[in-house]
Amino acid sequence: MKWNRSLPSGTKDKLFREANGAYQLEKQVNDIVKKRGYQRIDTPVIEFEDVFYSEEKNEKELYRFFDKQGRLLVLRPDMTTPIGRVIATTGIQPPLKLSYSGKVFRSNDDMLGEQNELTQAGIELIGYSSLKAEVECITCAIEILEALNISNFHFELGHAKIFRCIVTSLGLDNTAKAELQTYVNNKSLTDLKRFVARYPSDLDGFISAIPRLFGEVDEVLPIAKSLLKNDTKIMAIIDELETLMNAIKTCHPKISLTVDLGLVALMDYYTGVLFSGYADLVPDIFLRGGRYDHLAEQFGHPVIPAVGLGINLDTLVALQYQIKGLAPLEQPTTLVHGSLAQLSKSEALVKENRGYQLSLFETLEDALKYGEKWQYQQIIEVTQDKIHVIKVGAQN
Amino acid sequence: MKWNRSLPSGTKDKLFREANGAYQLEKQVNDIVKKRGYQRIDTPVIEFEDVFYSEEKNEKELYRFFDKQGRLLVLRPDMTTPIGRVIATTGIQPPLKLSYSGKVFRSNDDMLGEQNELTQAGIELIGYSSLKAEVECITCAIEILEALNISNFHFELGHAKIFRCIVTSLGLDNTAKAELQTYVNNKSLTDLKRFVARYPSDLDGFISAIPRLFGEVDEVLPIAKSLLKNDTKIMAIIDELETLMNAIKTCHPKISLTVDLGLVALMDYYTGVLFSGYADLVPDIFLRGGRYDHLAEQFGHPVIPAVGLGINLDTLVALQYQIKGLAPLEQPTTLVHGSLAQLSKSEALVKENRGYQLSLFETLEDALKYGEKWQYQQIIEVTQDKIHVIKVGAQN
Repeated sequence: MKWNRSLPSGTKDKLFREANGAYQLEKQVNDIVKKRGYQRIDTPVIEFEDVFYSEEKNEKELYRFFDKQGRLLVLRPDMTTPIGRVIATTGIQPPLKLSYSGKVFRSNDDMLGEQNELTQAGIELIGYSSLKAEVECITCAIEILEALNISNFHFELGHAKIFRCIVTSLGLDNTAKAELQTYVNNKSLTDLKRFVARYPSDLDGFISAIPRLFGEVDEVLPIAKSLLKNDTKIMAIIDELETLMNAIKTCHPKISLTVDLGLVALMDYYTGVLFSGYADLVPDIFLRGGRYDHLAEQFGHPVIPAVGLGINLDTLVALQYQIKGLAPLEQPTTLVHGSLAQLSKSEALVKENRGYQLSLFETLEDALKYGEKWQYQQIIEVTQDKIHVIKVGAQN
Repeated sequence: MKWNRSLPSGTKDKLFREANGAYQLEKQVNDIVKKRGYQRIDTPVIEFEDVFYSEEKNEKELYRFFDKQGRLLVLRPDMTTPIGRVIATTGIQPPLKLSYSGKVFRSNDDMLGEQNELTQAGIELIGYSSLKAEVECITCAIEILEALNISNFHFELGHAKIFRCIVTSLGLDNTAKAELQTYVNNKSLTDLKRFVARYPSDLDGFISAIPRLFGEVDEVLPIAKSLLKNDTKIMAIIDELETLMNAIKTCHPKISLTVDLGLVALMDYYTGVLFSGYADLVPDIFLRGGRYDHLAEQFGHPVIPAVGLGINLDTLVALQYQIKGLAPLEQPTTLVHGSLAQLSKSEALVKENRGYQLSLFETLEDALKYGEKWQYQQIIEVTQDKIHVIKVGAQN
């Protein structure tokens, strides 16, 4: 079978209004972050596989191929890791506020119906250890969503260290860790109860309650604290989350913000606060981010504090389409037709008048047909000695 | 060896001013074509290999890999072929004026020092058989170059059918055709003389002169015609080129335009006029295009007349960098610093004042250091009850 009329799984063509809408949306996002003082960075789509190498990561999702020397290449699955590479290898000096937009790739199965080629935009704050950087991420995201007229969005915060502290406290090996991760991800109360029975500790009450520890900050955090008893490490993490969430609420009193202590970081490099963004009518998380102080370390660089977030622009385009928020295409009014010899005269008319378009048809007849089909108001015929206006439909 | 600190051959990171410049340049180009009535189309980076399958093409240059079902995928090496696929498979009705911008990929060797990941922008006029469409391509390119303040550019035109007519007239097999192509490409007078001795015909004089048949239209075309004698087919092609070039000169009397009858189409799909664009200080051709009436046919669709061109944006960015035409980054003047609790007050100040930026540092001391290093004019300290202006450098 020949596949030359088909598209690979998880990819799509965008045409006309959708393509224009996606481009304008990306531009709007880039304009906002530029205005907030972010500097653009643009890394290649193709990278060596080693850049994304990580012991814990599920490596099945990468598109892999070889260069002419037989070295293993991949299509970047995210933008943050390459930025870590840049920081570690170029000698550019933090602190930095970086922004990006472009495509990322995941080799998912046909069956899942997922996007394998996505457009993301995001920011990375490198060299900032203050929680102000976390607030800045959220502020920036809110500014973007408001500019796009997306209402009813919602942020959920968690912390990557909670799960890691539990793993360390319980002294779990990789198998037990993976098992615990599954139960936490699935919010499975029964499995967690059985798990703490096998690995008893002071954290039993907290661990078994994790699936329920999500919701309003004022409700969840006091319960969590009461369950923690003597664990000062996790207590400190929860205090940090509380401080941050209060700061966000002070800056943005109207936004919807909840906490989920059972969030486990999707990417290894996260070391602190985790963000997820949701919106009405959107089935997936459209925004992810968090603190990842150890990213540059992976590339042999000393630790640099860093926090960032990425937005799935395809999801937002689909949403704008749904809420009829995509900019309509401008409808031209006038088609200017003339012979090849009159082209510069026709072009001058088009340049001077908004809504005028050049006819590239050989004959006036074809220009008239086109004008009628696409509801132009008039055709202007340019001949050597005069300009003649034909109202569309009038010749019938 | 680990490759996690390196970049694949032919790729690069763009930072700050270069990344911003590249983005702005792409935006400028897209704005111009949008204003000229082109509609954006956005096809995936990943395609099935069958889409680019062509008997004659050198297939070594594609990045190839597999999807989960074992089907062969590639990174698109050009944008025109996928647009052919879209036209042939979606039922969208020509005539259409399409535009695109994005990345294309070629797997060149390390040694050649070529770009393997390039950003291209371009236009495709689908369903227009008139030479006006060719003029429109050139007009559009000129408008783009002028908007980018790129002067001293130059267009060279050829015609894909000249070479094909010779091959048909001489009844060449594929080996002889490839041989002739090499000699024409290399402008090798001696090899061509030997070649016509082996394949004698009425075209001997014309074929042996091809390496010299480039330059000013008024000089080259009369010589070509005198050499052609009875060959009406090639004569008609040359007449078409002459009509087109005169039309371009009428529209754009000041631009530099020459003809090269020895141009051989790089891509199979070209069937008519070929364009190449050059500029001072640019080592490569930065613009290519032409007429390709048989593209949709490749995908099982009836013939549609089509003409288009693509611009290598990376080359233009490099040129703008060289001529110092890249927009400078805006330098902020004021850093607004306060505690986490004062963040919304600080944010309001930043919003109201151009050139103000939010400090995300934990301490005022760090903000002052940063302000001094990056030559801010002042730091504004926001506390609960007052706002305090510190001139940078004044505290020393």
